[in-house]
Amino acid sequence: MEQKVWEETGGAGDERRKRMSVGLCVSCPPDIKQSVDKTLEYGYHFVVTQLTHPNYTRDADDDDPAPIGRTDRVLKSSEWGRLIVAQINSKVDLDSEVEHIGRKSRVILEREFGFAAHLGVPAVMITLNKPNNTQLGRFLCEKLVGGLPYSVWVNVPMIHPSRYSPLADQEYDTWDWWNEFQTCCDYDRRCGLVLDLCDVKHLCVEKELKRWIGEPVKALVVPTSFFLINQHGKPVLSRLHQDIIKKFMSLDVQYIIKNDTECDLALYVRYLNYLGKKLFVRDTMTEFVQGFEDFLQNPLQPLTEHLETTIYEIFEKDGVKYDAYYKAVLKAVQSINPDQVPVVMVVGAGRGPLVQAVLNVSIVLDRKLKIYAVEKNPYAVNTLVHRCKHEWDGRVTLIKEDMRTYKPPEQADILVSELLGSFGDNELSPECLDGAQRFLKKTGITIPQAYTSYLAPLQSTKIFNEIRQNRPLDKSLQVIYETPYVAHLANFYQISPPQALFTFTHPNWGEDPSNRRYKKLSFRAEQNCLLTGLAGYFDTKLYGDVGLSIHPDTHTRDMVSWFPIVFALQSPVQVERDQTIEVSFWRTESGDKVWYEWCLHSPVKTRIFNSCGKSYSIRKH
Amino acid sequence: MEQKVWEETGGAGDERRKRMSVGLCVSCPPDIKQSVDKTLEYGYHFVVTQLTHPNYTRDADDDDPAPIGRTDRVLKSSEWGRLIVAQINSKVDLDSEVEHIGRKSRVILEREFGFAAHLGVPAVMITLNKPNNTQLGRFLCEKLVGGLPYSVWVNVPMIHPSRYSPLADQEYDTWDWWNEFQTCCDYDRRCGLVLDLCDVKHLCVEKELKRWIGEPVKALVVPTSFFLINQHGKPVLSRLHQDIIKKFMSLDVQYIIKNDTECDLALYVRYLNYLGKKLFVRDTMTEFVQGFEDFLQNPLQPLTEHLETTIYEIFEKDGVKYDAYYKAVLKAVQSINPDQVPVVMVVGAGRGPLVQAVLNVSIVLDRKLKIYAVEKNPYAVNTLVHRCKHEWDGRVTLIKEDMRTYKPPEQADILVSELLGSFGDNELSPECLDGAQRFLKKTGITIPQAYTSYLAPLQSTKIFNEIRQNRPLDKSLQVIYETPYVAHLANFYQISPPQALFTFTHPNWGEDPSNRRYKKLSFRAEQNCLLTGLAGYFDTKLYGDVGLSIHPDTHTRDMVSWFPIVFALQSPVQVERDQTIEVSFWRTESGDKVWYEWCLHSPVKTRIFNSCGKSYSIRKH
Repeated sequence: MEQKVWEETGGAGDERRKRMSVGLCVSCPPDIKQSVDKTLEYGYHFVVTQLTHPNYTRDADDDDPAPIGRTDRVLKSSEWGRLIVAQINSKVDLDSEVEHIGRKSRVILEREFGFAAHLGVPAVMITLNKPNNTQLGRFLCEKLVGGLPYSVWVNVPMIHPSRYSPLADQEYDTWDWWNEFQTCCDYDRRCGLVLDLCDVKHLCVEKELKRWIGEPVKALVVPTSFFLINQHGKPVLSRLHQDIIKKFMSLDVQYIIKNDTECDLALYVRYLNYLGKKLFVRDTMTEFVQGFEDFLQNPLQPLTEHLETTIYEIFEKDGVKYDAYYKAVLKAVQSINPDQVPVVMVVGAGRGPLVQAVLNVSIVLDRKLKIYAVEKNPYAVNTLVHRCKHEWDGRVTLIKEDMRTYKPPEQADILVSELLGSFGDNELSPECLDGAQRFLKKTGITIPQAYTSYLAPLQSTKIFNEIRQNRPLDKSLQVIYETPYVAHLANFYQISPPQALFTFTHPNWGEDPSNRRYKKLSFRAEQNCLLTGLAGYFDTKLYGDVGLSIHPDTHTRDMVSWFPIVFALQSPVQVERDQTIEVSFWRTESGDKVWYEWCLHSPVKTRIFNSCGKSYSIRKH
Repeated sequence: MEQKVWEETGGAGDERRKRMSVGLCVSCPPDIKQSVDKTLEYGYHFVVTQLTHPNYTRDADDDDPAPIGRTDRVLKSSEWGRLIVAQINSKVDLDSEVEHIGRKSRVILEREFGFAAHLGVPAVMITLNKPNNTQLGRFLCEKLVGGLPYSVWVNVPMIHPSRYSPLADQEYDTWDWWNEFQTCCDYDRRCGLVLDLCDVKHLCVEKELKRWIGEPVKALVVPTSFFLINQHGKPVLSRLHQDIIKKFMSLDVQYIIKNDTECDLALYVRYLNYLGKKLFVRDTMTEFVQGFEDFLQNPLQPLTEHLETTIYEIFEKDGVKYDAYYKAVLKAVQSINPDQVPVVMVVGAGRGPLVQAVLNVSIVLDRKLKIYAVEKNPYAVNTLVHRCKHEWDGRVTLIKEDMRTYKPPEQADILVSELLGSFGDNELSPECLDGAQRFLKKTGITIPQAYTSYLAPLQSTKIFNEIRQNRPLDKSLQVIYETPYVAHLANFYQISPPQALFTFTHPNWGEDPSNRRYKKLSFRAEQNCLLTGLAGYFDTKLYGDVGLSIHPDTHTRDMVSWFPIVFALQSPVQVERDQTIEVSFWRTESGDKVWYEWCLHSPVKTRIFNSCGKSYSIRKH
């Protein structure tokens, strides 16, 4: 969660709208103090402007530390520090082939970067004008390694004019410029992207837009000339532009109005604030994920670590999930001979939500069920004891044991469990249900009946950086990149559709009860992109046609229990259009643990990650 | 800055009072939900209570993971997580000499600590009842290493009853109990202290109170029986108790009301809120340091790193300091033959505050002065250029150079500089002024004329932990403990008064211009304590009787420019009453840097810290 250039102080604000942070591009104002005051008065939150007053000569002479420009005392340091994004002279060209231009550019850049540090501005904005920016990248690297105290905003257009100009002899893709540049800078999180919004006549195609959303976009530049005038004479954006802005909203980008027409500037910020209200979708999912965007969590280890009250409470809030379980149990019970009293065992009962679902089935069907609740966490058992006595009126038999060792007095018709993780089998549902199968009748039903994991190639430098940045002192880079994380993906691009990986079905009376798996998957990249890892999803068939899914294309509506899982790569891999991304993936085990290993075969070969589960594994005991 | 058990949400609140966080001790309430609601209604912010309902048997049987007590669903997880401090059964005695008591105690403790983790409470409170708590310490260590998710509040009385009971055969000092216990736990920052306030008849002596203030005190327990009834029939605390509370206010402690009388509980929290207003002193210093308590800053490196706008701005805000400089320059000018136009050179002029002070002298004395401003930071020069032109009307000659290499057109009568650091010479004032002395007349005056550093032995596990906790990934423990820090000391105990260390005088025309120094200092501990490092201060004679000081006993009133400097030890050292703390301290140098080294001779001998300046040095270039 990053700090914004400008941040509204105090209060949670109105949650029914997205708070829009809007800056104004002010080119060389004669009096910066006055200009800032006026811009704030219009309702803007920050100003993008040059630090160097145009009255001062720009001639760079190595020997003369000449006056730089404005004096620092024209604004308070808190104003420099919150309100000003420093725009670097766009004529600077460090990568010029003319030697003296490169040399002069370096002097100017050194000075402007130094002055920006002196003033304490929150961000500096530089523009990429051409494909090759290696010298600029090297310059920036030097600053980043030296400990740059501000962010660097790298400005490119979403679409380069050459893409639609009949005169251009070459078509440029500005994503390539940016990608090469950020690669030079090792994807440093202080480098963000500022995109010039594309013109309605030359819109970004869908896949390119999606790829931009996988980048660390800090701001969108909107020229006033893009606004239409509505029937009330007010500037508004076209539906097409609104659609683009809506897509970027999940990234919490800021907006920069670039005034290229004569107009009342207050109207634009007011309009963007209005869009913050109009375009903001507020549903169960949006509400739930707020603040969790790209936030890394470690997958649970429910077999070795007792879950806590907060976790149980979050689980239990997902009505959609338990409703599906209720329906599955209902159908399963109905499939059993009506003369019989079905024995239903909830294995891993927690604080009892599945037990309650089973009881509801019994009530709705008006049918007697013999219900067992098996739970090993003594603190959850404590709650179950209470519920058995005070809520369930003795209708549930409580078993304080591990389902894998429990010796039941009778066999079950239905086994119900909720051991699924974000990747399906990653909380050892296969091992647990295979273990519990001992006390399932040969004709018995397991809920879930089956589940499948899915993988998709992922581009997200955000996730790549989150992993790097949150490294605990006692872990190596290798360990943290070989560990999977659960995260609500927001700032990402899914390079290609997910493909099915491993499927498990229950009960598993087959001869080979092994839960080891191996599969090789091939994905095609439809455009140049950056592979930073793999996103994992799952779906499950609970019973019959009742299922749950977090696969992006079939996601169960309003279900919030699971975020995707991410398997990272320690170094991002450049992928070109039409290249194949070929991945091998293993699920393997030893006596006391289960783990995954993975490697790439193409576009580059990599070592096998997490070999022997040395960095991450799921413990059985 | 730590999170409190309870934290008021939103808004900065009324700054003219201290926000008091007050809890109520509620012993075994029959209905915890009702009890919490009522306590909040009274105006309290949290509840200290047992997790285990008294109706449940406490018989611990290793084999039976029996129900623990209250069910977790009686409160929301957010309530457990914000409002409840879990009090551990006071009968638990892990250090009992009776084996089965120790064994049973361990089972109960395991269970209560586990249940507390399950519920997600913010803190657990345990009580020390006797001197030897090694088993309990070991138990806690095990939990801390395993990753305890909550704080542990360790409760002891400020004064043990044996100290004033005629019947006791031994006098206990509860500080020793605590100290031994926290040492077991390696001063883990998750272990805080909860002190039972002493009774007015048996007050803590001053030095003991000061020592408690050096400890990580999280809360004070105030029994209702300590309250007097005022003429309006309302409970109030005696002046003596108020004095103690006032002293703890700077630590931001919380309060726990222990109800041992029949009374209206709402009155106590209201009274404590009132004390938050009444006892809160709000002066320049208090205001300035808010939020900086025990916050570590790296000393400046002004010779190699350009200062930034924010730093200059903070400097310039200290009117007291520049007023002293003004007075010193005034007196120095007055000491010069009235027929002469004194040449005054401000070396290291920054953005010009000293230049302004010199100009003010010129105006007030109505005497012409030839003023030079020497500054090497091009970004500060930028400001000086502007001020020379627009504010100073050509009366100041600006020199864009380093004072150590500058070749002036004439010699100065007065050299003025503000290069002093928290430890006097630690920003290389001696080296700079010796360098600038070349262009001072033999009869000339340097302002400052002299400065002296001071050292005092320090007890502060807070600072010890701040250093440990903020370790950057790329630095070893040794490096961070061998680095000095500047900090506003709040949670500390100064074991013995400061003693003078090194003095420098200017100009220094003597034969030995060396600025190397060595001194051995001896301090006596007047009570048992824990030595965690050394606190450094300085004072300076600017000119004649005009001086500045941050020595605690002579601190210049309302001057905020300098916080003390701290030299740490990598391991705290136990010191007994009347033991001598003997310290050697060096200031030494090589061609391009200056650094300090230090070691202890007693009560233990240590290696020489920061030998060769390997962890920290002040660069000359």
